Amino acid sequence: MIKAGVVGGTGYTGVELLRLLAAHPDVEIAAITSRGEAGTPVDRLFPSLRKRVDIAFSDPAKTDLTACQCVFFATPNGVAMGQAKPLVDAGVKVIDLSADFRLKDIATWERWYKTKHAAPDLVAEAVYGLPEINREAVRKARLVANPGCYATAVQLALLPLVETDFVDRDHLVADAKSGVSGAGRKAEIDILFSEAGDNFKAYAVGGHRHHPEIVQSLRAAGGRDLGLTFVPHLVPMIRGILATVYARVTREADFQQLFEKRYAGEPFVDVLPPGTQPETRWVRGSNHCRIAVHRPMGGDTLVILAVEDNLVKGAAGQAVQNMNLMFGLPETRGLEQVALLP
Amino acid sequence: MIKAGVVGGTGYTGVELLRLLAAHPDVEIAAITSRGEAGTPVDRLFPSLRKRVDIAFSDPAKTDLTACQCVFFATPNGVAMGQAKPLVDAGVKVIDLSADFRLKDIATWERWYKTKHAAPDLVAEAVYGLPEINREAVRKARLVANPGCYATAVQLALLPLVETDFVDRDHLVADAKSGVSGAGRKAEIDILFSEAGDNFKAYAVGGHRHHPEIVQSLRAAGGRDLGLTFVPHLVPMIRGILATVYARVTREADFQQLFEKRYAGEPFVDVLPPGTQPETRWVRGSNHCRIAVHRPMGGDTLVILAVEDNLVKGAAGQAVQNMNLMFGLPETRGLEQVALLP
Amino acid sequence: MIKAGVVGGTGYTGVELLRLLAAHPDVEIAAITSRGEAGTPVDRLFPSLRKRVDIAFSDPAKTDLTACQCVFFATPNGVAMGQAKPLVDAGVKVIDLSADFRLKDIATWERWYKTKHAAPDLVAEAVYGLPEINREAVRKARLVANPGCYATAVQLALLPLVETDFVDRDHLVADAKSGVSGAGRKAEIDILFSEAGDNFKAYAVGGHRHHPEIVQSLRAAGGRDLGLTFVPHLVPMIRGILATVYARVTREADFQQLFEKRYAGEPFVDVLPPGTQPETRWVRGSNHCRIAVHRPMGGDTLVILAVEDNLVKGAAGQAVQNMNLMFGLPETRGLEQVALLP
Amino acid sequence: MIKAGVVGGTGYTGVELLRLLAAHPDVEIAAITSRGEAGTPVDRLFPSLRKRVDIAFSDPAKTDLTACQCVFFATPNGVAMGQAKPLVDAGVKVIDLSADFRLKDIATWERWYKTKHAAPDLVAEAVYGLPEINREAVRKARLVANPGCYATAVQLALLPLVETDFVDRDHLVADAKSGVSGAGRKAEIDILFSEAGDNFKAYAVGGHRHHPEIVQSLRAAGGRDLGLTFVPHLVPMIRGILATVYARVTREADFQQLFEKRYAGEPFVDVLPPGTQPETRWVRGSNHCRIAVHRPMGGDTLVILAVEDNLVKGAAGQAVQNMNLMFGLPETRGLEQVALLP
Repeated sequence: MIKAGVVGGTGYTGVELLRLLAAHPDVEIAAITSRGEAGTPVDRLFPSLRKRVDIAFSDPAKTDLTACQCVFFATPNGVAMGQAKPLVDAGVKVIDLSADFRLKDIATWERWYKTKHAAPDLVAEAVYGLPEINREAVRKARLVANPGCYATAVQLALLPLVETDFVDRDHLVADAKSGVSGAGRKAEIDILFSEAGDNFKAYAVGGHRHHPEIVQSLRAAGGRDLGLTFVPHLVPMIRGILATVYARVTREADFQQLFEKRYAGEPFVDVLPPGTQPETRWVRGSNHCRIAVHRPMGGDTLVILAVEDNLVKGAAGQAVQNMNLMFGLPETRGLEQVALLP
Repeated sequence: MIKAGVVGGTGYTGVELLRLLAAHPDVEIAAITSRGEAGTPVDRLFPSLRKRVDIAFSDPAKTDLTACQCVFFATPNGVAMGQAKPLVDAGVKVIDLSADFRLKDIATWERWYKTKHAAPDLVAEAVYGLPEINREAVRKARLVANPGCYATAVQLALLPLVETDFVDRDHLVADAKSGVSGAGRKAEIDILFSEAGDNFKAYAVGGHRHHPEIVQSLRAAGGRDLGLTFVPHLVPMIRGILATVYARVTREADFQQLFEKRYAGEPFVDVLPPGTQPETRWVRGSNHCRIAVHRPMGGDTLVILAVEDNLVKGAAGQAVQNMNLMFGLPETRGLEQVALLP
Repeated sequence: MIKAGVVGGTGYTGVELLRLLAAHPDVEIAAITSRGEAGTPVDRLFPSLRKRVDIAFSDPAKTDLTACQCVFFATPNGVAMGQAKPLVDAGVKVIDLSADFRLKDIATWERWYKTKHAAPDLVAEAVYGLPEINREAVRKARLVANPGCYATAVQLALLPLVETDFVDRDHLVADAKSGVSGAGRKAEIDILFSEAGDNFKAYAVGGHRHHPEIVQSLRAAGGRDLGLTFVPHLVPMIRGILATVYARVTREADFQQLFEKRYAGEPFVDVLPPGTQPETRWVRGSNHCRIAVHRPMGGDTLVILAVEDNLVKGAAGQAVQNMNLMFGLPETRGLEQVALLP
Repeated sequence: MIKAGVVGGTGYTGVELLRLLAAHPDVEIAAITSRGEAGTPVDRLFPSLRKRVDIAFSDPAKTDLTACQCVFFATPNGVAMGQAKPLVDAGVKVIDLSADFRLKDIATWERWYKTKHAAPDLVAEAVYGLPEINREAVRKARLVANPGCYATAVQLALLPLVETDFVDRDHLVADAKSGVSGAGRKAEIDILFSEAGDNFKAYAVGGHRHHPEIVQSLRAAGGRDLGLTFVPHLVPMIRGILATVYARVTREADFQQLFEKRYAGEPFVDVLPPGTQPETRWVRGSNHCRIAVHRPMGGDTLVILAVEDNLVKGAAGQAVQNMNLMFGLPETRGLEQVALLP
């Protein structure tokens, strides 16, 4: 049994991690810390976990996480970078679900996250935890930077295209749409039911933090620079991301086959049959990303559709997938939930 | 492995049953029939099941269900009563999720369901599958009538009150609210997104089919007649039922304790701590019914709140719970899903 | 033209008041104050008002509201009681949409609102602004206490029953359901989209602030005490309240006729034909309360269903209705919006 | 007073037209026909119209629409083309909200709508009713083809770009998102609450009927051909369209100014200040289209955001706007509703 700790378990990625870990046959949840909720039984805050998680949130100052073998940070950005070092040094495998270790270029990170980075050395060591790109590195990693939710969907939609040379890689467009849980469990006006319900809008049109993350990772994967316009939108649903990606074909190829080959053997990437139009509910609560390849009206613009559950493959599920890799377990262990439909 | 068949797997209880059975360690899904979809792979209609259910819907006329050990009817009312007999006779255990075998009084059934009943003899034999009342009978049953969704929530909220004599059992009120999936996967105007969304209404105020079912079952449990006003409402959510039950106290008791004692040991009935106000999402996708006992402002009116997922404890999950009982398996086998929150 | 001022126009009742006043032919919006948003053009916060409201929020400390003829308080509880006096003294007609002047008994108010009351003398003078009860008093009032949203729906559902003697008035039950906008535009976790969406729950089961308000008003209307159990619920929709009221018949009457007679001539109370099951969207954005009278299965329990838009008849629309009365205008002036359906 | 008739008033564009016409000071609703609902009072089907529309649906066969001065067709595609001729001949002004007269090329129309066209001669005469392009022609028209909902939003977002030469007009992308009411009031599985709720998907990726409409109209406006990839998506909300349009800049310009100049004086097109991210609720129930111009991260891709209410500016409101023009009324008459927010 892997003794697992969760730092900051009061947000949505936290509770989702608890849902998955509680059902994982090789994991024992050893500690969940929260400054604000120290002492509160976890199932009082999240009664969905009654009879399944029977510990209480503990005070981070009084919790020895080095007794764990694996620690997940489900904290706001800026926390993990200050706390990961002693854990890594003590041999604890660390998986950070926040953005602290995602960007290799410290200056870029500091510009987007508006803070000084506290652990640049760890950034260098951290492995970007998208198994479909970095599986082998993840297996050996001591510290994994778990990808952002949009970043996961957009990358999986673009990967086969940036690794090859069939489309104009300087003018890619990713029009992404996310459920509201992606904004986290924070008391903010914009994500109130009466603001986000029965409504639709784009946001962060001027620039979103997942943009540099996507570009950095795809640049490495493709071995060249790329140009990407990324516009996120807020959908009045709780979970789910759909990325609609547009790319201009410059050289002909069988794109359906290109995607099928690229993802053959991937347990959590499902290339759908031609003509399929995926829906976010097809992955609600599951760790799959389902992708469809379209060529509208036979024109020169390729349209890729990718859906994922932002809290699972886009966050907690991917973190567990990374944990499985780091501990030599089958990659799908504890991640076999069937999507909840309807 | 139990070879299981599902008749009519294209509705919401059908797909939910498939979700649960696909994850059940002791079940093999042997056949799913559908007249309209014969030949269609199940995962084309429900892509949430891709890689988990890889058979196709089969033509009922060409499917030998007697090769199964257990057959579930997830059909509209009126189908199971015409097809259950030969299966039962062949030793197949049958669980009917429709209403065909729920009411013992044939005349009452015919009045509410506006059809002549095709198998009155089987009605007599059928066991009403609410394990919290009929566990032992279910174990030995050949044919189980799986309760209605409202009926399950309202009965579990009322059971401790009708089995004792502390409230006015002649004037009970159950104000119940259901998500829209309770109405089924039928092409009807009333349940369109643009009709049921951002909206709230009562319906069937003049009388709902679950009324006689609740009364019949509680009358048996309490050993006396009872008076119940039952008003269902439609909530703009997909899954979930909350029943708010009002009863006038006629003799004092510790009602919290009454409920805790009644349901001690019940794996799927969770009596919440005093003061709790349960939410439907606490059971979304799980087989639990969570119940809270309130006494507003110390008055003489008791308020019981009960939540369940109408498709799980209110339908497919309860059916699997009954199957577990009928086959001597642990009652919770395959039903340990943690609720999906948020 | 009535020069109107709005204190605290940044909440939902505030913006709804602006929507109605902007379209009112006899009103000029002279000032809207907000401490937090002073200087911000109103249509930057609420772009729905672009080209219709072209003033900015002003600093309350620098705004002379005595230049107005009518001032609306759309502030949190506890503000109006400290600011109304000088306005009333200056001859400005004041309509308070908060709870400050609703309860005549100061001790009761202080117990429910957990503050010392700052203006007990004004409480005595204030007229409770439910025109269907207090029309004549409102006409002459200098200060109107605009009723709560639940309080409006529940009172209109109960009024004909408490003014007569056909039901058990000691054991009334009001099971009320509200859209989330009723909780206001406040940054709170509980009303986030991801918390309140696809979910249903009861709240304040132990006691809600509208309970004493309803009881006080109906006691006065009926000339006797009454017993009421009131349980509010949160519906995943933005606007709308449905109150389902249960009353035991003690003496026979034609209840449909009783309601029709009581509300004959009322411009905003619509008694629906027998058998009707009203939906909240039938009044979305309009000032109507629509009521249906039911007698399920011919039993001795009467069920009254009442729907209103909590922000219109339950708040801003009723405030404008009161203003019309106070200024001798036709009661429906500026309130003829047709409900938005779908 | 204009005597107006509505053919087929039982769908969402029909009831929306009734909402607007009922409040229009110069219109008298003379007749509403429906084969299926003949004899039913309009306000029984749509109780939101109680006390405002007091006529009944009439049998089309028995209704003399030539007694009207203006007739709206709110019928499914294929009806108006068979019935418009005698009305136009009788001097009745006809506004068709369906697609029958939108495409000038009969072969194209027949390919997309899969029927033989019944009135090719009328197609030639019909004026495409987008006032922002065809205002003068509409004024003189006898027959107006009211634009499609997506078509309106996408055209208004693209018009200033196709009329000038600053972007690559051969590779435009319109990623459009619509509320579910755009699919109409039809009993279809796909638009059930439990299918479309808490879900997001693209559809008609291979080709949508509004594509040829947009291209035809913009080709005429720009005087040259254009290339457009158009992908519609279904949003779990009732009303509203957001079009996110991507265009590659080929020659520099002040695009904000370009849009402001193009739409200066347009009563229903609102070019928002730089940086604005419009939301569909800013136009819920109103006839405005609000547009924002973005240039993410200073790159060479322009992003235009346009929101409208699909049932108002995208259907019934635009129809009334056209009627106003045809009858020489002020263009905004009866269309001054403020958007319903929240």
